[in-house]
Amino acid sequence: MKAAIITIGDELLIGQTIDTNSAWMGAELSKSGFDVYRITSVHDRREDIIYALNEAAGKTDVVLITGGLGPTSDDITKQTLCEFFNTHLVMNYEVLSMIEVMMSHRNFPMNDKNRRQAEVPESCRVLKNAAGTAPGMWFEKNSTIYISMPGVPHEMKYLMKELVLPELNQRFTSQIIIHRNIMTYGTFESKLADILADFESGLPENIKLAYLPASGVIKLRLTGTGSEHDHLLNLINEQVRKLYATIPEFIYGEDEESLEMVIGKLLMAKNKTVVTAESCTGGEISHLITSVPGSSVYYKGSVIAYSNSVKTQLLGVQDYILTRYGSVSENTAKEMAVGARNLFNTDFAISTSGIAGPDGGTEAKPVGTVWIAVASERGTVCEKRVFGNDRITNITRFSLAALNLLRKQIINY
Amino acid sequence: MKAAIITIGDELLIGQTIDTNSAWMGAELSKSGFDVYRITSVHDRREDIIYALNEAAGKTDVVLITGGLGPTSDDITKQTLCEFFNTHLVMNYEVLSMIEVMMSHRNFPMNDKNRRQAEVPESCRVLKNAAGTAPGMWFEKNSTIYISMPGVPHEMKYLMKELVLPELNQRFTSQIIIHRNIMTYGTFESKLADILADFESGLPENIKLAYLPASGVIKLRLTGTGSEHDHLLNLINEQVRKLYATIPEFIYGEDEESLEMVIGKLLMAKNKTVVTAESCTGGEISHLITSVPGSSVYYKGSVIAYSNSVKTQLLGVQDYILTRYGSVSENTAKEMAVGARNLFNTDFAISTSGIAGPDGGTEAKPVGTVWIAVASERGTVCEKRVFGNDRITNITRFSLAALNLLRKQIINY
Repeated sequence: MKAAIITIGDELLIGQTIDTNSAWMGAELSKSGFDVYRITSVHDRREDIIYALNEAAGKTDVVLITGGLGPTSDDITKQTLCEFFNTHLVMNYEVLSMIEVMMSHRNFPMNDKNRRQAEVPESCRVLKNAAGTAPGMWFEKNSTIYISMPGVPHEMKYLMKELVLPELNQRFTSQIIIHRNIMTYGTFESKLADILADFESGLPENIKLAYLPASGVIKLRLTGTGSEHDHLLNLINEQVRKLYATIPEFIYGEDEESLEMVIGKLLMAKNKTVVTAESCTGGEISHLITSVPGSSVYYKGSVIAYSNSVKTQLLGVQDYILTRYGSVSENTAKEMAVGARNLFNTDFAISTSGIAGPDGGTEAKPVGTVWIAVASERGTVCEKRVFGNDRITNITRFSLAALNLLRKQIINY
Repeated sequence: MKAAIITIGDELLIGQTIDTNSAWMGAELSKSGFDVYRITSVHDRREDIIYALNEAAGKTDVVLITGGLGPTSDDITKQTLCEFFNTHLVMNYEVLSMIEVMMSHRNFPMNDKNRRQAEVPESCRVLKNAAGTAPGMWFEKNSTIYISMPGVPHEMKYLMKELVLPELNQRFTSQIIIHRNIMTYGTFESKLADILADFESGLPENIKLAYLPASGVIKLRLTGTGSEHDHLLNLINEQVRKLYATIPEFIYGEDEESLEMVIGKLLMAKNKTVVTAESCTGGEISHLITSVPGSSVYYKGSVIAYSNSVKTQLLGVQDYILTRYGSVSENTAKEMAVGARNLFNTDFAISTSGIAGPDGGTEAKPVGTVWIAVASERGTVCEKRVFGNDRITNITRFSLAALNLLRKQIINY
């Protein structure tokens, strides 16, 4: 079962719009057992659209097409489909009356452009679009199904969920595909691949492993294909257990969980609270923690101590510590965490002090250096980490490292 | 001048990762005058990659390729390029030593997989990647240039900015293209388009206007094409002056300037300092301000007052204010800003108090409501804004609104 996706629109090619439709459709088709072998984005240009359609012809079971169905003159998908399928536009009066109702509901007068949206290629089956004015269209030719939908994401999703996916699922009694995502933090892709070399080579033929790294976090995705759901699920679960046994120190969660989500769950479960005292991360840790809905239950606040005077006056870092060891040091990070925990009266406090760059580095403390401390009733732990040269990347890396150190402390608490 | 983009990676096809690289590269290539006629995403699969390469061969001047250069076994772009260009992998010792330095800097041991990242196809020119371990590769065959880069966005962007775009611009000098970006904040795209309808229809034939909206900020891009640089520059400058005269209240900067960059420049120029007191924005304003290099000159720090106790104890918000008006109110926001300014002894202080959602809204104060205050020597100004239902979007919108209020106060100072 193969599928291809074609997205049409000048805005995609000149980078004005990021093509989020393809990822959404790709995920849905994969879940239904299709191998999406190709995504193509082309201009609102006749020859480019025809080329993309021809290329998919005969090679795939299903082609999903979005875009180019708007009412303005740059939208030419419908005419081009007529040419490709050797048919012509006819007025569909059912669609026309749907559009009339929709327009009057929104208090917009009908014009010629709206009326032309009710014209469809004669040979297609119309997919009625309750979410917008452009209908979807279903074509079949030489055992390939072509489905054209509007490019507006919520209209495309409406048609996919209500009409397209149910029919595709019914017609293609499919292979079963199961994905499992294991979230890891704390190492490089290459090191992880080394550690997992035996695991990977020992995987059953029908289970594949993929590494999906994104700014410090590496998602490990196991994809299994088979004909029997429960059997496949057992097989995958067995491999997941093996993964947990092989790299327990790196796995922090599953599916799309972020470190801040996992920390939130842990703090809620243990009924604990946390604050942050950030220097070089400048509020990013706080931002990550508070991006989780409901975080006000366990997160009390933060002191962003960008200047040394804030470190001494609010967090109680002693002057001699700053003078003797510098603001970027183990001692300062520890005192910041302890000071923040006392100030806010919480169970945990995280602190960071480092050099995000691009300036401010020395030979002993290059750009990318950070000390991270976590204070709790049981004392204060501190880690030194060294990352790269890019300011924004460093701020992210420092923040994730701090969240992970906190996570480990909460688990052991 | 035609260009094609090929992005490689299973994660793109199954919708696990949205392909943001293509949009970024498409925008950059367009600015350089290329017609990006096609974006193709394919699996980490030999035959699919070869097919995509063959398809572009001879039809285009430049093919940009990202992805599949990681150290793990699912990454097969390099071997496949060898096959396509009829060459083989050789060790590049310069790249190897760069990787060694990078790994030792991060205190990670080298392994075979890292070493293999230094192997490159013999017939390519290596593009040294200071942002990561996978080098870029430049090939030429039958008057088409093929450039392969890592899929990690910041590594791809590093190679594009430092090496690829400068060389492409030098080799494909055709028409002169001048872009000017005018950054606006404070209105909707559709409203701006209404206001600018006359301006747009009065533009000379060779100057185009594009609206590029991104989370609250709308970038207006004027693109002029011509054969004579100074004449074109004068023509564009004249239109830019017209824009400033038409929408002075919305323009805050030019080119890729963010609100936080403009605020930094203003504070530096006026030798003033700022702090933040954030509730619902949870550190995002602080994060934005400190993402600007050198911000420690004018930014002192922040109190993230997520819980009410922090508002009263650290910021001096009076208990009766919280009881009488609630923590999400004009009075609370004002007291937070005044309190933060006193605590840190700075010229300006910004505060936010609102409901980011998804829960916590009431009929009087629905999710998306925020009060923003800016305190200075001249007193305290406060604005109420109401945005939507999405937590993450709200946090961003609240933060930009706060930065813009601060900007206006600094300008009038």
